[in-house]
Amino acid sequence: MQTSERRQQLGEALIVAAERAIEARGLSGLKARNLAQEVGCAVGANLRTLASFEALIEASRSSTRAAEGSGDPEAAVSDLIRLAQVYLKFASERRFLWRALFEHRMSGGTSPPAWYMKEQVRLFRYIEEPLRALQPGLTHEERALLARSLFSAVHGIVSLGLDEKLMVLPLNVLQEQTDRVVRALGRGLLTIPADRQGAGKRECRGDG
Amino acid sequence: MQTSERRQQLGEALIVAAERAIEARGLSGLKARNLAQEVGCAVGANLRTLASFEALIEASRSSTRAAEGSGDPEAAVSDLIRLAQVYLKFASERRFLWRALFEHRMSGGTSPPAWYMKEQVRLFRYIEEPLRALQPGLTHEERALLARSLFSAVHGIVSLGLDEKLMVLPLNVLQEQTDRVVRALGRGLLTIPADRQGAGKRECRGDG
Repeated sequence: MQTSERRQQLGEALIVAAERAIEARGLSGLKARNLAQEVGCAVGANLRTLASFEALIEASRSSTRAAEGSGDPEAAVSDLIRLAQVYLKFASERRFLWRALFEHRMSGGTSPPAWYMKEQVRLFRYIEEPLRALQPGLTHEERALLARSLFSAVHGIVSLGLDEKLMVLPLNVLQEQTDRVVRALGRGLLTIPADRQGAGKRECRGDG
Repeated sequence: MQTSERRQQLGEALIVAAERAIEARGLSGLKARNLAQEVGCAVGANLRTLASFEALIEASRSSTRAAEGSGDPEAAVSDLIRLAQVYLKFASERRFLWRALFEHRMSGGTSPPAWYMKEQVRLFRYIEEPLRALQPGLTHEERALLARSLFSAVHGIVSLGLDEKLMVLPLNVLQEQTDRVVRALGRGLLTIPADRQGAGKRECRGDG
């Protein structure tokens, strides 16, 4: 089923209302009349959030389109940094909507449907593109897994950076830290062979 | 005030009971008779959790003590990987206690006291040590900030890796990914000068 059909099924108007409620007051701002409707609205609102995030990524691509597909590692590193900065911008500007994507214990402990999870994972393909230049030897599955890990690392920096628990960091500081860490990550990946020795348990003893 | 005095003040027995309740059922397992007591117990239990995590770090150090302070970048990278693996092990084995460290919306929205936040941040010094070898030009404040960012990146990998929302990854896969990402990060940091150009907005035009 297409995303658009799913949205129609859920009732576009209800979803837009849910999105507004989350944006204003977080997931707890949802006040649906029944559990199934609440889950449907939350999932629908999350789909809209993912779509607007994807639009931001696409918009940021145009300025660097020349570098894409060139296989140039420095261009790939810049690409990873751009994606991370778009994520940081989105999370900081639309905080409640972004948080709702990760708050999964909806009332009653209901989980979102499997196709919604796939929709989230689909966005990782933007990270896979630059990874081709940085780790050309990876299989498709290995690249997808590494893309997820890089996303998770950036998500950690963004979410703890915007978290009151550890003290919120000013946005320009977070931008600089994100830049530094992702640049290091990208460049460092070039030094790591794609084979499975990555586990790093192998000792160099010169008896090889 | 010493941590030990604080614990006495909070009532050691109550805290141990709180720790057990969290370990069994998460933060929601706490059933204190009043809000102040709940906050006190949760904070006390979190302090015990941090202390047992620190003990794990210290235990893992002994095997690599020779490498410490040598200023050797590869030893520093190994040190960062070891710390990340200890964190992953702790989070996966004591999931509820570890999650409670990051669940701050206690009932009524009460925040933990400032001295508790300091106690958390204090653990970042373990990351600062290897960073000295990888980014020797940083000031103390810059190093502390970067240590927080590296922690956040690893926390992101660990927490999304153990999260049902994105599909839980098997532990050996998470170990391998953590190894790969932290190794890349450590090696990549060596290629980035410590000055403020990190923001990466500077274009190389050869007119310099």
